[in-house]
Amino acid sequence: MALGSMAEPTGTGVAYSHHPASGERGICGRFCLPAAPNVDTSWNALNDLADLPPALVAQVQQRVDEAELAARDMVCVSYSIRDGQVVAEAGQAAERSGRAALRVAIDLTEHSEIALSKQEAVLLVSAGHLEQVLHPQFDEPDLDQRQVLASGLGASPGAAVGGAYFSANAAMDAYDQGEDVILVRQETSPQDVPAMTIAEGILTTRGGLSSHAAIVARGSGTPAVCGAEPLTLGEDWMEVTLKDGVLRIVEGEIISIDGDSGLVLAGPVETSEGDSSADMDTILGWADEVRGDKIGVRANADTVVDARQARDFGAEGIGLCRTEHQFLGERLGLIQAAILATEAEEESLALEQLANVQRADFQELFQAMDGLPITVRLLDPPLHEFLPSLTELLLKQAKIGLTESDERLLKAAQRWHEQNPMLGTRGVRLGILLPQLFRMQVRALIEAAQQHRAAGGRPVAEIMIPLIVNRAELDLVRGWIEQELDQMTDHEGQSLDVKIGSMIETPRAALCSSDIAGGADFFSFGTNDLTQMTFGFSRDDVETRIMGEYLERSLLQANPFETLDRDGVGRLVASAVKDARSVKPDIKIGVCGEHAGDPASIEFFWEVGVDYVSCSPYRVPIARLVTAHAIVRTNNATKQGH
Amino acid sequence: MALGSMAEPTGTGVAYSHHPASGERGICGRFCLPAAPNVDTSWNALNDLADLPPALVAQVQQRVDEAELAARDMVCVSYSIRDGQVVAEAGQAAERSGRAALRVAIDLTEHSEIALSKQEAVLLVSAGHLEQVLHPQFDEPDLDQRQVLASGLGASPGAAVGGAYFSANAAMDAYDQGEDVILVRQETSPQDVPAMTIAEGILTTRGGLSSHAAIVARGSGTPAVCGAEPLTLGEDWMEVTLKDGVLRIVEGEIISIDGDSGLVLAGPVETSEGDSSADMDTILGWADEVRGDKIGVRANADTVVDARQARDFGAEGIGLCRTEHQFLGERLGLIQAAILATEAEEESLALEQLANVQRADFQELFQAMDGLPITVRLLDPPLHEFLPSLTELLLKQAKIGLTESDERLLKAAQRWHEQNPMLGTRGVRLGILLPQLFRMQVRALIEAAQQHRAAGGRPVAEIMIPLIVNRAELDLVRGWIEQELDQMTDHEGQSLDVKIGSMIETPRAALCSSDIAGGADFFSFGTNDLTQMTFGFSRDDVETRIMGEYLERSLLQANPFETLDRDGVGRLVASAVKDARSVKPDIKIGVCGEHAGDPASIEFFWEVGVDYVSCSPYRVPIARLVTAHAIVRTNNATKQGH
Repeated sequence: MALGSMAEPTGTGVAYSHHPASGERGICGRFCLPAAPNVDTSWNALNDLADLPPALVAQVQQRVDEAELAARDMVCVSYSIRDGQVVAEAGQAAERSGRAALRVAIDLTEHSEIALSKQEAVLLVSAGHLEQVLHPQFDEPDLDQRQVLASGLGASPGAAVGGAYFSANAAMDAYDQGEDVILVRQETSPQDVPAMTIAEGILTTRGGLSSHAAIVARGSGTPAVCGAEPLTLGEDWMEVTLKDGVLRIVEGEIISIDGDSGLVLAGPVETSEGDSSADMDTILGWADEVRGDKIGVRANADTVVDARQARDFGAEGIGLCRTEHQFLGERLGLIQAAILATEAEEESLALEQLANVQRADFQELFQAMDGLPITVRLLDPPLHEFLPSLTELLLKQAKIGLTESDERLLKAAQRWHEQNPMLGTRGVRLGILLPQLFRMQVRALIEAAQQHRAAGGRPVAEIMIPLIVNRAELDLVRGWIEQELDQMTDHEGQSLDVKIGSMIETPRAALCSSDIAGGADFFSFGTNDLTQMTFGFSRDDVETRIMGEYLERSLLQANPFETLDRDGVGRLVASAVKDARSVKPDIKIGVCGEHAGDPASIEFFWEVGVDYVSCSPYRVPIARLVTAHAIVRTNNATKQGH
Repeated sequence: MALGSMAEPTGTGVAYSHHPASGERGICGRFCLPAAPNVDTSWNALNDLADLPPALVAQVQQRVDEAELAARDMVCVSYSIRDGQVVAEAGQAAERSGRAALRVAIDLTEHSEIALSKQEAVLLVSAGHLEQVLHPQFDEPDLDQRQVLASGLGASPGAAVGGAYFSANAAMDAYDQGEDVILVRQETSPQDVPAMTIAEGILTTRGGLSSHAAIVARGSGTPAVCGAEPLTLGEDWMEVTLKDGVLRIVEGEIISIDGDSGLVLAGPVETSEGDSSADMDTILGWADEVRGDKIGVRANADTVVDARQARDFGAEGIGLCRTEHQFLGERLGLIQAAILATEAEEESLALEQLANVQRADFQELFQAMDGLPITVRLLDPPLHEFLPSLTELLLKQAKIGLTESDERLLKAAQRWHEQNPMLGTRGVRLGILLPQLFRMQVRALIEAAQQHRAAGGRPVAEIMIPLIVNRAELDLVRGWIEQELDQMTDHEGQSLDVKIGSMIETPRAALCSSDIAGGADFFSFGTNDLTQMTFGFSRDDVETRIMGEYLERSLLQANPFETLDRDGVGRLVASAVKDARSVKPDIKIGVCGEHAGDPASIEFFWEVGVDYVSCSPYRVPIARLVTAHAIVRTNNATKQGH
């Protein structure tokens, strides 16, 4: 501290302009005599400085006020007191909780002298602050005293506490009994989705940040820890080898997980969830004003529950509806029947049944998103997810023999088996092999839209085609869609106005974007697949096995599935945007990969001129905030440039 | 025909300047009376026109000579005879066999009036001509009368006839009995390689042009048909359903395959192999003169047999030595031991044994390629090829139980199992997880080079690192290599001078080439993987399932695994070359994918400024010819530009 030499200090302290936990205005802090032992300066221990004489408190208050005025932010001032005088350092912007960040930003905007602009206020709230407010957090002072079972990947933010259940069925049963449930699996598969939806938290021992578990969890806002490899799973227990022996957790035993840090703890941990929804709405409203129509924020939503959640969170439409997700659980048999059909009649029956469920789903989505666009991606299944595992069937055959329907499934599994399904018969490739599937989806969408319109609604539909590598594929499928649109006019003879676009998720599509743009009304970057193919990284394989090693050795600065890789993938995105606009200046361009919910990546998408980002519903508030940040920073940079 | 109106024709004919099958100089052709019925004008039926009066023959000869002089090429002239006069059309360049093309090019160079330059001569021989001369061809007039069993993908050129054998063991046994063998498998695996090497031909019912079978076959010049899907395989038979019932071929029954057209026929088909080696050497020598040092031609060779063959064919070094191919067959156990080792001692023993075989291999290669560079790619295994199939082990476990060593293999197979091995723990990623493997290889290489030099040889070694995505990986592994080089000086204290380079086979490496170039002495494009990742096409999965459909529907103009995709992959290659040279103008850049043996692709590589192409040994003559073509065409275009 910069103390004068003429007097002896009689004590030192810190003072905040607002409480760092709650954000309430009013100085608080600590004052310590020089002889005091190590003093607790945690936020819990702050007080209103009432232990100082009022005159000195007034002096501290004055220093804090001056510093706050200069910083135009909540400040923390270090001071010392000598000879009845307060000597203060310059105030520094203070660390604060998410709840406090919201409160402070609003308070300083309402402050008569400081009167932050909305642009300034929005900048005072970080994405991390918002995360804290959106999800419950571990809230125990002595967390490091707890029994850590494992440290995995923080795959979906928030803390969760509940009984450990090791199968979807056990989890559903426990939930039905009113229990809070943590679903624990080696990896999750589409069959687990119903249980994942009701779970408080999800824990997997394999798989990375883009594993099925991680994606579904983020999509539904469920806290999740993935790839907790030290854990060994049994049928109804898990074990971990610790220094002092093996610890076993049995079915129903309480565990706690932290989807931010990746920690898995034995027993229940206190969590807290501050109620800041009014402040959050205020700040996000300001962020929306700053953003205006410069860049849109949509949500990835496959179900009406997701869609409603997304709209509540402020999404301006659905940027990605993954229609294959509508065929999970009980409906799996329908899609299997369509793929397995060998006779035309059988196929059309299966397709009709599929069309019925699709139509109903789309109608619900149109209702939930009335007046806002819904971007429907035609079927893009990794086929193996829809057919039973070849290995499992072969094992069943060896052990107990196969039924007739098993035999059929085995044949199909063998026929469709692929060495590298990620690079196999997916997306438009499957559509070209089985065109009736795509046509069925288009008809179901048109019918749903017509019914919604007939009922007085305002359906806005967009169709996008996945895994395009060139213009010819797009033209072919576009032709099919246009045929269906032309044939299915409503009772007034009007056909539906539907925009038809291309996913840009293979490097080739990005490289050939000027050509593909000629046949597309819009683009949507699938940055997950684009990252996989640009790096040659299979997410599930690489994230658990080498990503940790790479990050530890600084071979990568960040996990490219979390934060868009600017130098490689980003270069493809930037040139694809530029090339597409060179032939079609008004082409609409969105991003619907996981990166669309990541702050650093959103900033990049704004820089390269993307029209909207589409992220999972629970990331929509983050995206609304961060797009506003990007715009303010650009404005500031431009001003400084002048 | 443009006949005058004043006289009636008395007959018409065609005449060639050289025989279209043999290329021998001397007119030959056919003359037909107008009343003659359909006349056989096939090459077999040509004669020396001795049925015409000598005076008329002399007139035909004169017209042919004039046409040849004008065309500076072998010509075919159509003529008619009226009133004792020969009236001829302008001569046209004539279709000819591969053998004839070589002969004609040489003959016209030696011709006193025409005296083609070597550049012109080289242009008269196409890659297709050379293919014909290099490989036996079906040689039966009535091939369409034969029983076609299936039509697959022509995966490695040439025709082959032999007994069908359905396992590597059966094939080896038959070969030992002196039989010509066609190895028939669903797909081949590294365990089949010894049998593939001795087979006359290879037939697979699955897999595409870049399947294991196709790559190994092209590498060893063995004719192969892949993905002949109509065939069903049993343990010692194959069946196909034809119009008139099911046809079964049993072990040892003779079949014939055509690796150009993909045809599979029952029974033996006549093949012919013209002897044109002297003419071929002449033309390729001229091609080399034209090429000079403008662009190099190397070979992909993993064994001393390959290396010798490559040098015989004129390769100027090895551009790709796939060290993982040195661990097949009997040596598989060694690499398994190294990967499975759990104790340090066990690991170093396994590594020592591996080092011994590697060192011996490298020594042989240095001898075979004395004075020429050998580019060694550090281990790039798809790991699953080195470990037994997870499914097979699980089935064995279910059926008969596992031995202790099986149990270990099962654990390893489970540990290393990947969803998409093509995008998994390969290349430098494995090297970073198991650094001792790479270091062992480097030490073995250095020792082999030192021993070769000590024995008076001239070893030239280059090391390249596979599957790089960024500079940091390269720097790390380069550091290890340089450490080994520094430590392993020879008895004079000299360390070996080894160039260290990077494969460019992920899109990201291509996009970041200016950065990566900073740490590399050379680049080598792996265009197979680059194509897989740029398109998101797993070769094995896509080539059998959708490639046919895509080509048929013109969704692709060519199979991008055969001919480099200029618009997508080519754009990456071109920009990577340009970016790398912008920071390191003298960086050496090669191509070692299958495309390096494809004429259209070679032309592209020349255009973008690649320094050398490296292809399988049997493609080296093609590459020598086609690089010369590209250079002549560029020269001609430049001249025309002036």
